[in-house]
Amino acid sequence: MSDLIAKARALDATDELAERRELFALDDGAVYLDGNSLGALPRHVPERMADVIAREWGELRIRSWDESGWWTAPERIGDRIAPIVGAGPGQVVVGDSTSVNVFKALVGAVRLAGDDRDEILVDATTFPTDGYIAESAARLTGKRLVTADPRDVPAAVGPRTAAALVNHVDYRTGRLHDLPGITAAVQQAGALAVWDLCHSAGALPVGLDAHGVDLAVGCTYKYLNGGPGAPAYLYVARRHQARFDSPLPGWNSHADPFAMTTGYAAADGATRGRVGTPDILSMLALESALDVWDGVSIEAVRAKSLALTDFFLECVREYVPEGRVTSVTPEAHEERGSQAALSCADAPAVMKELISRGVIGDLRRPDVLRFGFTPLYVGFADTERAARILAEIVG
Amino acid sequence: MSDLIAKARALDATDELAERRELFALDDGAVYLDGNSLGALPRHVPERMADVIAREWGELRIRSWDESGWWTAPERIGDRIAPIVGAGPGQVVVGDSTSVNVFKALVGAVRLAGDDRDEILVDATTFPTDGYIAESAARLTGKRLVTADPRDVPAAVGPRTAAALVNHVDYRTGRLHDLPGITAAVQQAGALAVWDLCHSAGALPVGLDAHGVDLAVGCTYKYLNGGPGAPAYLYVARRHQARFDSPLPGWNSHADPFAMTTGYAAADGATRGRVGTPDILSMLALESALDVWDGVSIEAVRAKSLALTDFFLECVREYVPEGRVTSVTPEAHEERGSQAALSCADAPAVMKELISRGVIGDLRRPDVLRFGFTPLYVGFADTERAARILAEIVG
Repeated sequence: MSDLIAKARALDATDELAERRELFALDDGAVYLDGNSLGALPRHVPERMADVIAREWGELRIRSWDESGWWTAPERIGDRIAPIVGAGPGQVVVGDSTSVNVFKALVGAVRLAGDDRDEILVDATTFPTDGYIAESAARLTGKRLVTADPRDVPAAVGPRTAAALVNHVDYRTGRLHDLPGITAAVQQAGALAVWDLCHSAGALPVGLDAHGVDLAVGCTYKYLNGGPGAPAYLYVARRHQARFDSPLPGWNSHADPFAMTTGYAAADGATRGRVGTPDILSMLALESALDVWDGVSIEAVRAKSLALTDFFLECVREYVPEGRVTSVTPEAHEERGSQAALSCADAPAVMKELISRGVIGDLRRPDVLRFGFTPLYVGFADTERAARILAEIVG
Repeated sequence: MSDLIAKARALDATDELAERRELFALDDGAVYLDGNSLGALPRHVPERMADVIAREWGELRIRSWDESGWWTAPERIGDRIAPIVGAGPGQVVVGDSTSVNVFKALVGAVRLAGDDRDEILVDATTFPTDGYIAESAARLTGKRLVTADPRDVPAAVGPRTAAALVNHVDYRTGRLHDLPGITAAVQQAGALAVWDLCHSAGALPVGLDAHGVDLAVGCTYKYLNGGPGAPAYLYVARRHQARFDSPLPGWNSHADPFAMTTGYAAADGATRGRVGTPDILSMLALESALDVWDGVSIEAVRAKSLALTDFFLECVREYVPEGRVTSVTPEAHEERGSQAALSCADAPAVMKELISRGVIGDLRRPDVLRFGFTPLYVGFADTERAARILAEIVG
């Protein structure tokens, strides 16, 4: 037995999160390193959804909007996500896609910043949709769009900046950006900090309240395991809620939606971030999936995540011939999210072969092999095996 | 046996859609007249969703985006809805809420109309969310918002009008507006006609292509039985697609989404109306639910719908003491959707009692009792019974 196999066993044996894996449907023997794209299915979700569909929809029908708590699901589920991202209650609301929430957050931030600021600053390395939506938000609000590498944001913000939109973890490289430092720099310049948490929520502590973030968005189908295309969320810090002015003021965000008045009057609190009728099936699957977080500390998740990526990079160095792959994920813990990204000349063919051999990662064109480490269900033996099979393929 | 009970039996006996009811979970003996708020559950949907959740998500996981056809679901399901609203293929895409789609459609229409037109005209009797979103669209595009009763739209449109947003059927009164005539008048003025089909799609022929509608939106959880908060759809007429310029250009509408380029390049066709990652669970429940439409002609649905509302109003006239309720739904067939709305002084208490006695309608504050007639599963005996119980309550 190689030293690394023995090390993996030892690490698994002392992993306090190891037993969480049993909560997930992962019976096919695959090493699933794509939970940062689509989280695995928590085992109990099918039974809950059978009840939602057959009883809540099928039997109670319209009564479920009240009796099954459908109407209040966006705020209730927001409050379940809140502790995972370090937010107190009443500031997170679930609904719509991440893209739509980026639009709400950015236009909202621009309006909060006031008319004398005419620039939106956006992360130059952002997941594309944020950039596209930022461009639309800029066009519709008459602002200028400026881009900067997240590390250069503190230098790039200034008196013209209304808001800066930054990804907490780079979707491609796995680089973790300095949320506290960038937030402080943006605010010192009088602008608002808007964070995209898609690749950090559920993988590491975010500390939205502690670091005074202004607005944030994130998806729920990666580390939160909410299901394919599960609704995203919007965080609006309590101090901004009374002035938050959504560009999508649908009837669900009205102060008295069933009065059905002609004039719009915004609800208080996180509800102001709602738009139209929530997609209940996807939303309640997410709510059920969040049960796997009960009793989990995000600090323990972070510790295991770093141990997993450290160990994976160690196994890659040990097993894979020099020069075949190059890690684009930072070595420093404070700069690393919960994935390892390896550049590789023949990445498309290598990923195809990895998947056929049961190591499920994904490809980021043209040349990045991306492996996500989800501490609730990935173990160290999985990690060693993934690196070993990678070495066999590229060796 | 009263004449009306006998008449109901005779009508049910010759109803060519009668057997469709068996496709729905309606075993509780209730008279469900709220399918215009939340359609009943088609019986086969739970089994399909169990497979989507346990196998497509739980076993195939990320592979389902390709192998289970998740990625192409928005266009595929759009093409299933298309014939129900009289659209040829490639013009309808499913996703997001109705409110979000109203935003896309209106901003898109304003941009198609050109800069020299500075007004958005909106149905003064609209379902509220359309008005709120129209106001936001006007604000963000620098246009003036003007309202008019749908019947006055032809007189209100002019050289300043960029787009007119009208509800096909009034959600409150059930009044059906003249889609062909209003569309023609709007276009004659050089503006674009945007229709909200929430209360008409699946209840009567819409004829989007035949009448040359420019853009349209609608929900899928009423007459289309897609489930609570099922995703809405957007229709962009083929002639406008190449110039359709969405205010929500998320990565799903990119010409090459997985290239993940910094610059946005819009996809061709209906795909241009997509935004972010689609909510797959809600979307596939809708797709499955649409099976109940196989082999149904929308003309047969319309004929039965009018027979049902005619018969309901006849029963109400016969059973309910004069003066206790007043129909606010037009008598003329060409002005009637698929619901009957009765104003009633003590409507809240009456609806509460109706529901407790198994007649499920809904209340539109302050004084409207609203009864939706869904021809796929409501019969004439149900209709007679609803009127009879109403009479017992208000008598």
